[in-house]
Amino acid sequence: MHIVQGRLSIETEPREIREITADVARWTEGQRVSVGLLTLYIPHTSASLLIQENASPDVRRDLDAFLRRVVPEDAGLYRHNDEGPDDMPAHIKSALTQTQLSIPVTDGRLQLGTWQGIFLLEHRASPHRRLLVLTLIGEKK
Amino acid sequence: MHIVQGRLSIETEPREIREITADVARWTEGQRVSVGLLTLYIPHTSASLLIQENASPDVRRDLDAFLRRVVPEDAGLYRHNDEGPDDMPAHIKSALTQTQLSIPVTDGRLQLGTWQGIFLLEHRASPHRRLLVLTLIGEKK
Amino acid sequence: MHIVQGRLSIETEPREIREITADVARWTEGQRVSVGLLTLYIPHTSASLLIQENASPDVRRDLDAFLRRVVPEDAGLYRHNDEGPDDMPAHIKSALTQTQLSIPVTDGRLQLGTWQGIFLLEHRASPHRRLLVLTLIGEKK
Repeated sequence: MHIVQGRLSIETEPREIREITADVARWTEGQRVSVGLLTLYIPHTSASLLIQENASPDVRRDLDAFLRRVVPEDAGLYRHNDEGPDDMPAHIKSALTQTQLSIPVTDGRLQLGTWQGIFLLEHRASPHRRLLVLTLIGEKK
Repeated sequence: MHIVQGRLSIETEPREIREITADVARWTEGQRVSVGLLTLYIPHTSASLLIQENASPDVRRDLDAFLRRVVPEDAGLYRHNDEGPDDMPAHIKSALTQTQLSIPVTDGRLQLGTWQGIFLLEHRASPHRRLLVLTLIGEKK
Repeated sequence: MHIVQGRLSIETEPREIREITADVARWTEGQRVSVGLLTLYIPHTSASLLIQENASPDVRRDLDAFLRRVVPEDAGLYRHNDEGPDDMPAHIKSALTQTQLSIPVTDGRLQLGTWQGIFLLEHRASPHRRLLVLTLIGEKK
């Protein structure tokens, strides 16, 4: 058994739902693990992670519209707005999605479903450099 | 230390909140691990996982009603409806719940709380065969 | 490779969003792991876990207000109210947040982001003793 950590840096666009499956898969496959578990962790409070349907761009638009409807950028709703009207909604959208995802690895490859992609959600209205910490536990090939 | 993977196949009813605790416990106990961590992963985008109260069937009804209220099947709200009015709501309900759950194992048994059960949520309006990937990391007894 | 489990007991105030970062960090650092993965698990169905912004107390107030707005304590909405009007909302708030969190550990320390804290959310209107199960997998220093 073996454990290894890595980091990925992603430069996001404002309010982007960004697919990162290829970046994560490339790092994972480079570790040459036969059976394992990959854990992604995002050390931010206004960006988050999600496994989601990756075939249709409309899914991303609908997910974004849903999050804006449930967590509106209405200054009257929040006390915390140090960094603008998108500040507190970004924290709540992060709370409703994931800070961490663990995905099984078999024969060196992520066991994502046919329609699954890994997404980084940038909840802020400005671009950011976001960090991801990857931890892989498994048997070396 | 030891890692093992398995699979479970579950045939769901339409919009079912299905308790799968017994299936997961049986597989886990068969691995004879003294201390470990079990990670469940569902490789689907319109079904998801949840730990929830398992004593009262009313909890399941109320949870289902809540999800329908927050994520209504209203075609006017979504662009993506390739597979019908339950298609995009199923993706959003999956986003609000879990694709993955990690549960501690002690003396070979899942350390669920007294009132906790593991549930598979079928968000589609038709029955499906759903796959679960189980990864157990731990010390053999 | 090495796996160890521990437990923390936390006495909560009613509807408290309680930071537990220091308790979790102290236990983790005591294990002297060079590279690892810590998994927190809460064996309850009316209290939950969350990584959230920990600098501003307003964030906690806004998060609490958001959860009450989306999951109102309105008896007309729920069948399950065996333990009062806060009973079913507590289960739903738990479903929307986390039962489990996995956090990377490097040089013995949790790899939380600058603004991240670990929170235990008490969703009930009365104080409770809550248990946390910690599982740490990693390489000993």
